[in-house]
Amino acid sequence: MNSQSLRAAIHIAAIFGIYLSLAMLVPAFVDFYFRNADWQVFALSAMFTGGMSLATALATQGRRVTANARFGFLIVNLLWATTALFGAVPLMASSLDLSLADAVFESVSALTTTGSTVISGLDTLPPGLLLWRSLLQWIGGLGVIVLGLLILPFLNIGGVSYFKLESSDIEDRPFERLSVFIVSILGIYSSLTFACAIAYAAAGMSGFDAANHAMTTLSTGGYSTHDASFGFYGDNLPMLWIASVFMFIGGLPFSILALLAFRGRLDAARDPQIRAFALYVAFFAVVVAIYLRVTTGAPFIEALSHSIFNFVSIITTTGYASQDYSTWGAFAVACAFIATFLGGCSGSTAGGIKAYRFIILFELMSNGLRRLVYPSSVHTVRYGDRPVDDDMQRAVVLFIASFFVIWGAATVLLAGTGLDFMTAMTGALTALTNVGPGLGDVIGPAGNFAPLPDTAKWILVLAMLLGRLEILTVLVIFAPVFWRR
Amino acid sequence: MNSQSLRAAIHIAAIFGIYLSLAMLVPAFVDFYFRNADWQVFALSAMFTGGMSLATALATQGRRVTANARFGFLIVNLLWATTALFGAVPLMASSLDLSLADAVFESVSALTTTGSTVISGLDTLPPGLLLWRSLLQWIGGLGVIVLGLLILPFLNIGGVSYFKLESSDIEDRPFERLSVFIVSILGIYSSLTFACAIAYAAAGMSGFDAANHAMTTLSTGGYSTHDASFGFYGDNLPMLWIASVFMFIGGLPFSILALLAFRGRLDAARDPQIRAFALYVAFFAVVVAIYLRVTTGAPFIEALSHSIFNFVSIITTTGYASQDYSTWGAFAVACAFIATFLGGCSGSTAGGIKAYRFIILFELMSNGLRRLVYPSSVHTVRYGDRPVDDDMQRAVVLFIASFFVIWGAATVLLAGTGLDFMTAMTGALTALTNVGPGLGDVIGPAGNFAPLPDTAKWILVLAMLLGRLEILTVLVIFAPVFWRR
Repeated sequence: MNSQSLRAAIHIAAIFGIYLSLAMLVPAFVDFYFRNADWQVFALSAMFTGGMSLATALATQGRRVTANARFGFLIVNLLWATTALFGAVPLMASSLDLSLADAVFESVSALTTTGSTVISGLDTLPPGLLLWRSLLQWIGGLGVIVLGLLILPFLNIGGVSYFKLESSDIEDRPFERLSVFIVSILGIYSSLTFACAIAYAAAGMSGFDAANHAMTTLSTGGYSTHDASFGFYGDNLPMLWIASVFMFIGGLPFSILALLAFRGRLDAARDPQIRAFALYVAFFAVVVAIYLRVTTGAPFIEALSHSIFNFVSIITTTGYASQDYSTWGAFAVACAFIATFLGGCSGSTAGGIKAYRFIILFELMSNGLRRLVYPSSVHTVRYGDRPVDDDMQRAVVLFIASFFVIWGAATVLLAGTGLDFMTAMTGALTALTNVGPGLGDVIGPAGNFAPLPDTAKWILVLAMLLGRLEILTVLVIFAPVFWRR
Repeated sequence: MNSQSLRAAIHIAAIFGIYLSLAMLVPAFVDFYFRNADWQVFALSAMFTGGMSLATALATQGRRVTANARFGFLIVNLLWATTALFGAVPLMASSLDLSLADAVFESVSALTTTGSTVISGLDTLPPGLLLWRSLLQWIGGLGVIVLGLLILPFLNIGGVSYFKLESSDIEDRPFERLSVFIVSILGIYSSLTFACAIAYAAAGMSGFDAANHAMTTLSTGGYSTHDASFGFYGDNLPMLWIASVFMFIGGLPFSILALLAFRGRLDAARDPQIRAFALYVAFFAVVVAIYLRVTTGAPFIEALSHSIFNFVSIITTTGYASQDYSTWGAFAVACAFIATFLGGCSGSTAGGIKAYRFIILFELMSNGLRRLVYPSSVHTVRYGDRPVDDDMQRAVVLFIASFFVIWGAATVLLAGTGLDFMTAMTGALTALTNVGPGLGDVIGPAGNFAPLPDTAKWILVLAMLLGRLEILTVLVIFAPVFWRR
């Protein structure tokens, strides 16, 4: 690591800060339109963020640096950290009177598309603030897609990226230029958000609610404009199905959605992670629906609607709740707990461990078992019909091991701040997987993160960022070897 | 798998059944001595077990078969299953009126040195029954040592066996013949048990209590002759320290204890797993002692005694409790939860994930992180100063991955039987690690497994056996490839 790379990284983060300050003008405009005094908060925040960023960008100008792995890690961490801090500016400045810990928690929870909130009284909040929370999630979702598709695969961390997989197969690249690819992704993400908003409005949401929920649905973020979350629309079964469909889409790889939409490449949908993801969503949704039908006697279609909605929400790491599923009985709670680990596809907005890692892990496991019986057998680890190289296998094992180690450490630290064991354990988990709600009385699907002590909130902030950046990206920064010249 | 191997495996299991029937004569004799009518139960059980075993042994005589990996897996599974079933015979026949599920649960819990019990009123139980529970744990502990030192390493599953590590180093083998090695292990195990009993008696236990607790201490089993477990002696701090020392010894590799005792090889104690094991025991014991000192204001030496005792008990997977540590506050509970995973050394009587696996896992992780920063760097995975081959690395990853998958599956299944989430989750965990007590009101350190439904008990029986046989030994049996001719 040398000072030139550091300068260049700060420069890029500052440029990004300028864009973010422009985004703050959107809630400013909306609050102004609704004649809410908070428009000034957003205008001032935009000026502050924009000014700081511009000054920093000018001060750090210089020649380009060669982008190696270390520079990649540095820029990703810096970008997410500064965006989260700037995102907290309007929250702190607003009439909500949030503490620093609360404002940063809310901003990080938004940007990482976790969706845990410390704010209550959402139903009466100024529209600009609600919109800012949703907008941060939407921006975060886009950031995660780009990260997962373009950056992490080249850092050897994760992702069965379209580019990585096809790299040996140059003639078959339908998006030859990076800029075209990024515009395609942005286009598909925006169009899907728009379609989702239209569908919500058609099913009965107000325009404002539809826009906000569409942004937090596609980004699998889960912030709502109501304290009751999606429970506000819990009796509207078509609404639950619309949400389930668009959350599910948010959990799909956007590279493949782009291939489908712009190139009509149906074959792309044969990605094994899509099959695995769809299979475990269906498994939990159906099993819990049957369980609900049997234990509550509710009509099957109603049980299925709520089961699908809440399990798609957990597995895609959205975090909406249509009901307090922690009251559905121990079996459903255990299923929700397990579902919290799973996650969606690589290159989607979903967090968690993710389907492709499970596919590779199960391949490793079945090969391992085979070798125990036939010690001399040799078998390649495969993802679909492609062999998985050593680096990818190592990255999968490294990620999962780090995941459990950090989960354990965060649980102990959170319990040390005075949280009860259930809150500490599930709070650490749900932050690390970017799902949102945990289990227990405090942070369950019907709860709120406000009562937690500040120390706990800072620990969760770190856990959310770790989870969102696929853990290793952040861990690397803490390794002494990283900072060696 | 062919019928000859199956026959030979059954033959060996039957021979072992004959030995077990002889062991039943010990409680028969004790009950007879104390003029308790239950001596007849044990005498009859011995006749039944001995007769069945003898007949089976005679019926399955034949020529020796070559011992390959598959035969190894088969015999290990069969031996543990039949011994557990025969061990349940006197429990079922006794005056306790246990159901089949209860008797098998208790026997499996004993033999796997888990120590979860479905029996209450221990303080007034006939001495023969108490002795049988302790004896089963003691036999189980010996079985685990032999398994870990001699069998699993050759099945490529686990264990940094003394033999495996030294195999390239033939001139330096201090125990040249297998029989000498086994006798040495038996000798050291028996002597330590005897020493422990003497120490307990010196500290104030009755002779009977001392003998029983010594057997369940060295085997890190944790069955007690009192409903209050070690809480019965909770005010006797010297007793807690004696127990802590001998539980800790039970968590050490017996090959190395034998080297120390019979060959004076102090260098053998430099095994990295011993250092790791001692370090994490010390870490949790001291941290929680400080926490107890601060939160309860108890004298530090008292806090330390209870903290050491209970954390040595959890980490060595013994399962004694000197107090209900689930009431020590969330931080201590979170520590106990994490400690449940850890386990002792390979080749000891302890269960859990075990220190050497963590060492290899952390080596894999730090290598992986280094490669992310320097993608072309090459670094060998090491255990101490020895390189760890691919098979061992694979086995470690395979074990840990299987561990978490089975933990998750067992949690969902247990919750499906109607257990609350906390009981289901920690019950699955504590069975799989052979610790004993879980968390929550039912199966916590002050609880009992009797109230669980039978289905839950059968699931736990399977989990205990899986954990005790290092999971993979059992999983292999369920793989279709295993049964191919």
